[in-house]
Amino acid sequence: MECGLLFSAGKDSSLSALLLEDFYQVTLVTAHFGFTDDWTYAREAAEALGFPFVAIELDAEVADEAVERMHEDGFPRAGIQTIHEAALEAAAVEYDVIADGTRRDDRVPTISRAVAQSLEDRHGVDYVAPLSGFGRGAIDRLVDSHLTVESGPSETIQKGDYETELRERIRNRWGEDAVAEIFPDHEQTRVTGRA
Amino acid sequence: MECGLLFSAGKDSSLSALLLEDFYQVTLVTAHFGFTDDWTYAREAAEALGFPFVAIELDAEVADEAVERMHEDGFPRAGIQTIHEAALEAAAVEYDVIADGTRRDDRVPTISRAVAQSLEDRHGVDYVAPLSGFGRGAIDRLVDSHLTVESGPSETIQKGDYETELRERIRNRWGEDAVAEIFPDHEQTRVTGRA
Repeated sequence: MECGLLFSAGKDSSLSALLLEDFYQVTLVTAHFGFTDDWTYAREAAEALGFPFVAIELDAEVADEAVERMHEDGFPRAGIQTIHEAALEAAAVEYDVIADGTRRDDRVPTISRAVAQSLEDRHGVDYVAPLSGFGRGAIDRLVDSHLTVESGPSETIQKGDYETELRERIRNRWGEDAVAEIFPDHEQTRVTGRA
Repeated sequence: MECGLLFSAGKDSSLSALLLEDFYQVTLVTAHFGFTDDWTYAREAAEALGFPFVAIELDAEVADEAVERMHEDGFPRAGIQTIHEAALEAAAVEYDVIADGTRRDDRVPTISRAVAQSLEDRHGVDYVAPLSGFGRGAIDRLVDSHLTVESGPSETIQKGDYETELRERIRNRWGEDAVAEIFPDHEQTRVTGRA
């Protein structure tokens, strides 16, 4: 079966791809808004991992709604959740099985059983989250043995997910300080291949 | 890393073994109470799947406590949960990683994030539940393509898990009617190999 796995070039979505590759024909799917070309970094990572890659452009309105919510909240959680769900909805139109890298210990994005069931029922797909039964320690150990990774502060690590585009959008509308307030500096990682 | 996966010879624990085999050195672990030899059916299934097998005998007191609770409740849920947790605790002493076949849609057994974290912290292990991000439909489709299965009513399908022993224990203490009341007839499946 054809599985579209949401892919950010990060550790979780990359490890998810490895967990699923013997069970589905996995395509790595990166959602973006067409504001920047950062999604091409995800394509590079997908190639390095040896998976087919597809970029899905989401409606810019989804991004605007999300950044407004983030700016209002002062933190990105709800906005990221909205975008993640929009990306799953878009993938569900194209694939038999949709998947993401959400983990047991994630606070966001998180797909409840009810949301999963709703996606499955409305689109006639299976939604699978192969890491949702793995904690942080188990994931770190599997990443160490199966993937090569580079890490650094958010500004220097070019990932392929929509976070870079959202930062850009926020910077344009409310300035650099708003970016720093909403996305406090955190270590980002990008997967560069298999170990 | 050495992973002890709780194994009943059913579909969920068998599929879990397949999902984990490229990532850990998986041993299939069947908990029993030494009342019957039914655990040998699990050993047969483990051999058919090509995995090493270990039987762990749990304290008979755990069974007695569980059947008393089941008899009191009139249904097996809480008793099964108690035994499942006791089996995980026993496996956690022996392996670096412990695992089970709990699914997204399971009502019992279910391991909450808090229970998982507690197991990990107290024993210095990783607890992983590879099916906890898969719904029933996805699991059924993967089982169809990867496993051979026989199914039938509970009395005719010899599995290897502790349910048979508990039925026996209840029959001895409260008679056949109590068994039928606590465990309403349901379709059981036993895995016989890889597809």
